Amino acid sequence: MSLPTRVHIVEVGPRDGLQNEKVSVATDTKLALIDRLGAAGLSRIEATAFVSPKWVPQMADADAVLAGLQRRAGVVYPVLTPNLQGFERAVAAGATEVAVFAAASEAFSQKNINCSIAESLARFEPVLARAQTVGIRVRGYVSCVLGCPYQGAVAPTAVAEVAARLYAMGCYEVSLGDTIGVGTPRQTQTMLAAVAKQVPMDRLAGHYHDTYGMAIANIYASLEMGVATFDASVAGLGGCPYAQGASGNVATEDVVYLLEGLGIESGVDLASLVDCAAWISEVLGKPPGSKVARARKPCQNP
Amino acid sequence: MSLPTRVHIVEVGPRDGLQNEKVSVATDTKLALIDRLGAAGLSRIEATAFVSPKWVPQMADADAVLAGLQRRAGVVYPVLTPNLQGFERAVAAGATEVAVFAAASEAFSQKNINCSIAESLARFEPVLARAQTVGIRVRGYVSCVLGCPYQGAVAPTAVAEVAARLYAMGCYEVSLGDTIGVGTPRQTQTMLAAVAKQVPMDRLAGHYHDTYGMAIANIYASLEMGVATFDASVAGLGGCPYAQGASGNVATEDVVYLLEGLGIESGVDLASLVDCAAWISEVLGKPPGSKVARARKPCQNP
Repeated sequence: MSLPTRVHIVEVGPRDGLQNEKVSVATDTKLALIDRLGAAGLSRIEATAFVSPKWVPQMADADAVLAGLQRRAGVVYPVLTPNLQGFERAVAAGATEVAVFAAASEAFSQKNINCSIAESLARFEPVLARAQTVGIRVRGYVSCVLGCPYQGAVAPTAVAEVAARLYAMGCYEVSLGDTIGVGTPRQTQTMLAAVAKQVPMDRLAGHYHDTYGMAIANIYASLEMGVATFDASVAGLGGCPYAQGASGNVATEDVVYLLEGLGIESGVDLASLVDCAAWISEVLGKPPGSKVARARKPCQNP
Repeated sequence: MSLPTRVHIVEVGPRDGLQNEKVSVATDTKLALIDRLGAAGLSRIEATAFVSPKWVPQMADADAVLAGLQRRAGVVYPVLTPNLQGFERAVAAGATEVAVFAAASEAFSQKNINCSIAESLARFEPVLARAQTVGIRVRGYVSCVLGCPYQGAVAPTAVAEVAARLYAMGCYEVSLGDTIGVGTPRQTQTMLAAVAKQVPMDRLAGHYHDTYGMAIANIYASLEMGVATFDASVAGLGGCPYAQGASGNVATEDVVYLLEGLGIESGVDLASLVDCAAWISEVLGKPPGSKVARARKPCQNP
């Protein structure tokens, strides 16, 4: 089967990545990270989240991050917003694109955001309505699409239902998250086939975690299905909140390496990206969470 | 395309893995490792190498390892032999299966074993002849099948030619090694298609290194082509001798996790294997080199 010739990468390191890092990161460092990512050719960089600083202290400087952005031509800087209040704050701070998030697992929704899936979707309706009024694009995230830390298996039809709801509400793209990184390639394809019955394949993105080392294989399997947008986190920033020391988001440089090998254009310069991964990892005081960065930037004391 | 329903894993940790570890490992530890691997259900365990201890000090106890083996029913313990002298030593020590190795890259052959590909193959002819006489099975390794650290690109036809020679000489199986882990899925499939014109697919094994994080995707791509034997190293033992801190052999537990997810039988018990990976990593004083072991055995201070 022929693969897509061009793939879009949504860089989630500054938000989804840093949010799960224990070390508190200075606003200037976040801005430098975002700038380096843009310089490496990433054109969609999730910059921050307008969530309660009580719940996510790392994102307490969301306004300052948006205010300090050196915006590059052709680059968008979406931000996460959990509700209408967060949306209004984000827009006031200069956001031009936002993202909302729901779960495909009822148990996860209850434990993670303390409400049912239906309630969370209802909460996004006014956000989507308001976004349409003010001309802001909204992306939808669905978590636990290949498994849930609380309920285990998640049915592809459950994923398709939530994705369809977000798409119908007006999300221009739905990102399908293997939040705990348990999925494997054929399961990924089965899930995608179910979702694609409800949402066009070119409006879907794969958001895979590498907790069990399957993310690159799952991306390859998704490319085989025609998916052409993937979320990734530079240096694999973030780790897995459900297993200490385990991996979280797939590393952007590993994804770019795969795409280069497959002859797929991403617009990202791998060498600059690996430099960026090495730099932010040093700032955080840990080795890069990607195989490519460790292969390209060998350390003396691994 | 339907995937194989059963896959054979050749565990290379005690040889290919330990050979590239800096810490000197005691014979008793090697024997305990081999025993645990057998207990976990691995039925082909490369035990040691009969090479010059001057070149590979870690394998200096090859005779003692073979002598000390608690052989399990249904498990074979192949050993690496570089020439007829090594072969005779191995047989005298009780080996029942051996492996020989050639490169698909002329530059690698010269730098690694100090002779041309043709010379290395000529050196194996008496080994294969003698093996046939004494009834010993011989496996052939081909290295650098997807790239070479010295010459860069390696043509699929060059791989096919060396594989064909080893098969014609009498090797019952040819293991195709991405020695520096640079390959990606479609390149892997192109290489396999070229080799399969010379050697039946069911006599080929994939031996992929995870240096750039591509091994699991390359295994998946190989399964799509019908390959049903893969080499792997518990805990990703070995690392990459060409890049400090980078990964070498794909970790057995990551492969088993993939296979389980694909519904493919391997005969290996993942929980026992992860226990074994955690144990040998602790012995070597480092975290396990696999995502699965780190996800299943979370550490408090990653």
